[in-house]
Amino acid sequence: MKIVKTISEIRDIVKDWRKAGYSIGLVPTMGYLHAGHGSLIEQSVKNNDKTVVSVFVNPTQFGPNEDLEKYPRDIDRDSQLVESLGGDIIFNPEASEMYNTKNYTYITVQGLSEKLCGITRPTHFAGVCQVVSKLFHIVMPDNAYFGLKDFQQYVIIKTMVEDLNFPVKINPVNIVREESGIAMSSRNVYLTDDEKKSALSLSDTLKKASQLINNGEKNSKELIKQMQEFISSHPYTKIDYIKIVDINTLEDIAEIPDNNYAVLLAVYVGKTRLIDNFVQHS
Amino acid sequence: MKIVKTISEIRDIVKDWRKAGYSIGLVPTMGYLHAGHGSLIEQSVKNNDKTVVSVFVNPTQFGPNEDLEKYPRDIDRDSQLVESLGGDIIFNPEASEMYNTKNYTYITVQGLSEKLCGITRPTHFAGVCQVVSKLFHIVMPDNAYFGLKDFQQYVIIKTMVEDLNFPVKINPVNIVREESGIAMSSRNVYLTDDEKKSALSLSDTLKKASQLINNGEKNSKELIKQMQEFISSHPYTKIDYIKIVDINTLEDIAEIPDNNYAVLLAVYVGKTRLIDNFVQHS
Repeated sequence: MKIVKTISEIRDIVKDWRKAGYSIGLVPTMGYLHAGHGSLIEQSVKNNDKTVVSVFVNPTQFGPNEDLEKYPRDIDRDSQLVESLGGDIIFNPEASEMYNTKNYTYITVQGLSEKLCGITRPTHFAGVCQVVSKLFHIVMPDNAYFGLKDFQQYVIIKTMVEDLNFPVKINPVNIVREESGIAMSSRNVYLTDDEKKSALSLSDTLKKASQLINNGEKNSKELIKQMQEFISSHPYTKIDYIKIVDINTLEDIAEIPDNNYAVLLAVYVGKTRLIDNFVQHS
Repeated sequence: MKIVKTISEIRDIVKDWRKAGYSIGLVPTMGYLHAGHGSLIEQSVKNNDKTVVSVFVNPTQFGPNEDLEKYPRDIDRDSQLVESLGGDIIFNPEASEMYNTKNYTYITVQGLSEKLCGITRPTHFAGVCQVVSKLFHIVMPDNAYFGLKDFQQYVIIKTMVEDLNFPVKINPVNIVREESGIAMSSRNVYLTDDEKKSALSLSDTLKKASQLINNGEKNSKELIKQMQEFISSHPYTKIDYIKIVDINTLEDIAEIPDNNYAVLLAVYVGKTRLIDNFVQHS
């Protein structure tokens, strides 16, 4: 598996691919890849001639008291996974390669970035938009793949791409779950066995919420109350938010419509902050 | 001269050019082209296989009390000029084509956008960064050309491109002046004959400042004082700012160095706001 460390090298490779007429897919990741990332890579490999997987723990999307230092890393294992799935190149720059000049420029997606995860992580999405726009400009992919577990991130990036006419198609990919139901996340590695049991309450409550909605519950407040009670009945849990929102504007919805809503939640389990959701498209 | 109105059409044309291996230059303008724009177009035609001139009076870079409505327009004359200089295409979209969705996304170049012209025009450079990034993503040029009359704009765009790794080279082009010395500007058309005489004080004071510096004057404060007195001695003038700044950070410089400084000024002549400068590179 070829691992590229510099912007100039990946640019040269992509330039040759373009000349040869190849389509290019990009899967931006922070590494420590799991089956969720695997699903993104498979989609990209299937739909593009060449696939670049970026592995970069982007410092600018972590807050001062977050887990930048201890965020799990294993480039050898990542490399094996990308190879086994047919990816072509890992782009794995150092932070000094990505941020080599004093930065003045910020991208904000106003009205979408401040909500939900943006409340506890006020600079997070500015960091995400920064690194994603840099990666898009460096790799110039035709397609980029984002997991729907980070639903707010997906909406923000899709909106940024539309607003600024980036020449890339944003492809959402469904959440991949462990056998237990828990959503795949690199941060699951932080959980103790006991915490993992409590973490199951996230996917369990989403399943129940979906059933309740299908059975006719349309009142968001009532549904959220039941979800809160369920999650809080599990030890180690502390709810950050549970929200039912419009999938485009991320605005709260009082009465649940037939389509185009998402049920989103963020919960601390021990010290680990986990997110999960389900999305009802039209 | 081919005038393209839609994003999809210009993208198709550029895609074919790319396939054929052509290099592409972009000259972003608001139209009503003069010899200053002509100089940008000439540079682009000289250094690229194909040149796109965008003509778009971008509403988002005008403040609420500025001259959006009365900004001069003459696409027929523009078309003739571009053709005579060897440009290949004019991209001339309607505002509804460029801004066809609710916009959430803002690019700010913090620390550079708030200074100088940013004081009287607080949303101006956000609008400029927005439209320039959109044009870059639509046309995907190898080179883009910007006039040094808008020196702050040039520094902000160059910085945005570096910070976000846009795959485009930003080429600065020297100011073109009328025979009298007055810097070419589409807004010169607003000036009465009497105002035009007073407008000459901008280029005249820059010439004098340059001489004084060459003769050993190193004190910015003293120099600025003399420039203020000179301009103010002309009727219809009202100084917005006169600044001597570092060419990269746009920070004020107290003692004028040998190189890498710019003398920048903005002056109202009657109701028309004019800017001019000279830049001393290393």
